[in-house]
Amino acid sequence: MKINLALAGFGHVGRRFVRLLREREAELAALGLEPMVVAIATKRHGALFSSRGIDAVEQAERVEKGLALEDGIGVALKDARAMIAKTADLWEPAVLVETTVLDITAGQPAIDHVRAALTAGMHVVTANKGPAAFAARELQALAEDRALSFLFEGAVMDGVPVFNLVRETLPAARVTGFEGVLNTTTNQMLVAIERGEAAAAALARMQAEGIAEADPSLDLEGWDAAAKTAALANVLLDARITPQAVEREGLGSDIEARVRQAAAHGKRLKLMARARREAGGVRAEVNLREVDPASPFGALDGPANALRLDTDLVGPILITQLEGSLTATAYALVSDLVRVARRLRAHA
Amino acid sequence: MKINLALAGFGHVGRRFVRLLREREAELAALGLEPMVVAIATKRHGALFSSRGIDAVEQAERVEKGLALEDGIGVALKDARAMIAKTADLWEPAVLVETTVLDITAGQPAIDHVRAALTAGMHVVTANKGPAAFAARELQALAEDRALSFLFEGAVMDGVPVFNLVRETLPAARVTGFEGVLNTTTNQMLVAIERGEAAAAALARMQAEGIAEADPSLDLEGWDAAAKTAALANVLLDARITPQAVEREGLGSDIEARVRQAAAHGKRLKLMARARREAGGVRAEVNLREVDPASPFGALDGPANALRLDTDLVGPILITQLEGSLTATAYALVSDLVRVARRLRAHA
Repeated sequence: MKINLALAGFGHVGRRFVRLLREREAELAALGLEPMVVAIATKRHGALFSSRGIDAVEQAERVEKGLALEDGIGVALKDARAMIAKTADLWEPAVLVETTVLDITAGQPAIDHVRAALTAGMHVVTANKGPAAFAARELQALAEDRALSFLFEGAVMDGVPVFNLVRETLPAARVTGFEGVLNTTTNQMLVAIERGEAAAAALARMQAEGIAEADPSLDLEGWDAAAKTAALANVLLDARITPQAVEREGLGSDIEARVRQAAAHGKRLKLMARARREAGGVRAEVNLREVDPASPFGALDGPANALRLDTDLVGPILITQLEGSLTATAYALVSDLVRVARRLRAHA
Repeated sequence: MKINLALAGFGHVGRRFVRLLREREAELAALGLEPMVVAIATKRHGALFSSRGIDAVEQAERVEKGLALEDGIGVALKDARAMIAKTADLWEPAVLVETTVLDITAGQPAIDHVRAALTAGMHVVTANKGPAAFAARELQALAEDRALSFLFEGAVMDGVPVFNLVRETLPAARVTGFEGVLNTTTNQMLVAIERGEAAAAALARMQAEGIAEADPSLDLEGWDAAAKTAALANVLLDARITPQAVEREGLGSDIEARVRQAAAHGKRLKLMARARREAGGVRAEVNLREVDPASPFGALDGPANALRLDTDLVGPILITQLEGSLTATAYALVSDLVRVARRLRAHA
């Protein structure tokens, strides 16, 4: 099945995604999927559309050399919105691949892009947590009304299946709550402090190594974990919350003392995310908790994520990502794309 | 979609399964599935067929009182083979639900039942590891030839998705190997010995509590873990092995000394299952290994299972079942049944 792709955002994830499509061309064809990139919209390198297809790997190489997208191989566009309108006009089924840089306090511009694409009749796959964290209900309803797919497997666990796992492999079961370590930057920082590094030194080192952002506040203050918690709660527990509604604690100025205090009685400090159905709705929180080192969350070192899903029929299931990577996040988009194609074929 | 079910085996799992269908009737209907039990074949309580449907929960209550299946509500049958022939003759799509007691050294009678059902045009869902451990390739080819489903999610992790997870949520990725703790009886025994219980006393207690079998040798000698390893290797790594081809170690007479020896240098002894693609094919083994207590496998206490899948695109993914249960195993059959219905609908 031929599917047209329009890429909003063409950073590390977007570029790894188009290379992965190339590398796995044969496997995808065997699954009945023939994707063609027809448009790319970037923030600083221009936006391009060609109904005959764009060699996206070639464009990725240009962008990595600091060049703009190539002139003359298609139509230049104003922005992602214009790209969505052009792509939606084509005859083949079309998918928006959303990987723009996220404003985590508002979920933009991803939410606007997703809404515009669904309204125009395009399916959406995204690695952004914004749409699910802020507008899951609205966007899912929009997609359902129009029999379109809106998928975001890469938003929370970097490609380790969570949403597809529940949707596809746990039918007729209910998720009653979850708990997890969802932010790797803070987890690596806590481990570094345990090992004797000062908090400021650990952060500087991690920034130098590219593990922590230049502005690390969204990770350290718990916003990233809160956004993931909201996305999980909205989708798995039918909550209607935003990251602002998640009770939130971050790594404060007393973090070294708290790590030492935990260690003094044989525990490890972890930034835990939790949500649970309660009488008045869903309660969601992100906070520092002391856990046993010989427990599933306590055993997490380095860039690992883990999520325990509490289910009514299978009991608690724990999913751990031992090594996140750019490839894993880009792969989440590929696996969502395969899901779009399977659904299209089933309804063809 | 109306689907006829024929049950081969009506023990704890089979009876929990029919009650689960009743309890989740509304959820299953919402997923488009209307299952009707038309036949039950037991070893000691008779075999029954009625094209108008059988109240399987009522029959479960009879069996639990020690009674035979009810006379006069249908046709009495000789055995499961006769049941398969009768059910396959009906017009609606039909599924064999295989939960007979397994001969783990040969995979029978489950393999014969699965083969007969597929040959007669029936789909198969089973909680038995025998068919996948001994005859995965043959039975999968048979199912594929006839566009039938052959599913066995309950065979290895008691309802925690493994096979469906790889099939449905990791398309175009490759599993390169796996490692896990797959047998809960030995794991609970090793934990008991760590806590100071003598091996013989721990076994007797576990037998009294219904955790260990009256004949525990298949668990203790590693046969159960080897059968699960073979099933995983055959399906996820395209191996063509049987449990006999798995290098196998069990809990020997020196087990207390080995547990103490591990503890003396801060480790825990675990019965680990592993398989990996190698130049000459797939190498699979089950053996006792010392692991760090603060590691994913080392942190496993009690009736927990855990499996690490090594993948090329998402890296290693760890799935942990924290509490196995009869309901979880029965649910695996339900989730496989939903998968059969989804596939039937997609091809309708």
